[in-house]
Amino acid sequence: MPRLAASVQYDGSRYHGWQSLKSGLPSVQAAVEKALSKVANHPVSVVCAGRTDAGVHGCNQVIHFDTDAVRSGYGWTFGGNTNLPDDISFNWVRPVSDDFHARYSAKWRRYRYVILNRPVRPAHLPRGVTFYYRPLDVELMNIAGQYLIGEHDFDSYRAVQCQAKHAVREIQHLNVYRHGDMVVIDVRANAFLHHMVRNITGVLLEVGAGRKAPIWAREVLDARKRSEGGATAKPYGLYFVDVGYPDEFGLPKSEPNPFFVASALPW
Amino acid sequence: MPRLAASVQYDGSRYHGWQSLKSGLPSVQAAVEKALSKVANHPVSVVCAGRTDAGVHGCNQVIHFDTDAVRSGYGWTFGGNTNLPDDISFNWVRPVSDDFHARYSAKWRRYRYVILNRPVRPAHLPRGVTFYYRPLDVELMNIAGQYLIGEHDFDSYRAVQCQAKHAVREIQHLNVYRHGDMVVIDVRANAFLHHMVRNITGVLLEVGAGRKAPIWAREVLDARKRSEGGATAKPYGLYFVDVGYPDEFGLPKSEPNPFFVASALPW
Repeated sequence: MPRLAASVQYDGSRYHGWQSLKSGLPSVQAAVEKALSKVANHPVSVVCAGRTDAGVHGCNQVIHFDTDAVRSGYGWTFGGNTNLPDDISFNWVRPVSDDFHARYSAKWRRYRYVILNRPVRPAHLPRGVTFYYRPLDVELMNIAGQYLIGEHDFDSYRAVQCQAKHAVREIQHLNVYRHGDMVVIDVRANAFLHHMVRNITGVLLEVGAGRKAPIWAREVLDARKRSEGGATAKPYGLYFVDVGYPDEFGLPKSEPNPFFVASALPW
Repeated sequence: MPRLAASVQYDGSRYHGWQSLKSGLPSVQAAVEKALSKVANHPVSVVCAGRTDAGVHGCNQVIHFDTDAVRSGYGWTFGGNTNLPDDISFNWVRPVSDDFHARYSAKWRRYRYVILNRPVRPAHLPRGVTFYYRPLDVELMNIAGQYLIGEHDFDSYRAVQCQAKHAVREIQHLNVYRHGDMVVIDVRANAFLHHMVRNITGVLLEVGAGRKAPIWAREVLDARKRSEGGATAKPYGLYFVDVGYPDEFGLPKSEPNPFFVASALPW
């Protein structure tokens, strides 16, 4: 069967994560498969680039699926969007070669963790940002983050229940910056472990709040022991923003806004 | 009774507007009064700077209320927020002189209308932006907007059911700009009529999409007839962002983010 690739964005607030659950609890994957199955007129199964936890959001989550149904890219995209709830949408759908695999072909993944750093909780995007009231020093957080760049064993930064065979991953960049009340952690790696970004964020928050020195990020890394790390930050501020594939597959590049996006909310 | 002023932010998506309704349908005002009544331990009624319609959002909606209850500003703010749903919050609460009136003391109001201008609908903030798929020319929209600056009779731009005695209002600035896929109309006036920003937006969208010349904004104004205007744009992209009072009342100034806010969503 011919293979198609697609880019999905979603607000994960009301889902129990990406993955379809036997329990039948709502998942992004189940909603996407249901929409594509309607357009295809037969059951469709999808594979994604990176599974996200309950409450985590997606901007350019890439998937692939196989189908004999013949539709235009426009037909899949708009037909799919018509059949999706308003908190999930397709950015694009297009044919791709048979050897493309959304998970195994990926060279890197990129996440952003968004913290709203002000004294009082927000009313806008209550599950789209993580609210943190203690003033954060972004420069210290950024220094701490640089200790994690490169290939390391991230055992201290993965969930105890993480099922990966080993914890060696390569962080390619980790930048912390501020726009007004908003603090963003932008991190790219070849791949991520379970809870890895949220556990990194837990450590950087301690550093930013002045309770730990930046070098602590490195000490936690060296300990190779989850219990030496910080708390796991909440899922709500986490966005799977992008994934990279070899050029030969010809997939559209996403174009991150220079403001990494300006939204309209003047907090 | 002593008077207090407060600043409220809210996501209006699930409310039938600011104003309490006899029907008992959910309103922002009812939720705010309920929260303040709990903190005060007696029934509290509030007056706001500018009532917003169903689905319209607020960032710095200012209110006043009278109470004999003695609490610190911190106590009112955090006690109030504890008793509010997660889509409404207080930015601050503080004592103000008896002659302050949230509505009648206001010198100007400022709104922003946010359009997400891209081919496919968004999954993030589906009721926090207005999605518009035709490419918009922001420069033309901005030229059209300049025809509305100054004091005019805005009869063509108010709802048929508007109850204001006359339609003369002074627009102090109207700027249209783009950040990536996001187009923002930022408008300040001494006061606004019912549906005025949404009706202005309806005209600017026609201009931006190339179906009308910028001068049409002026022609609609001169016609003084609602039926000559554009469609009323949806409420979801509209934010009541700020209101100005004489300095003598000593209220906190809001500090709009230079990016009018960067949020984290890399659409």
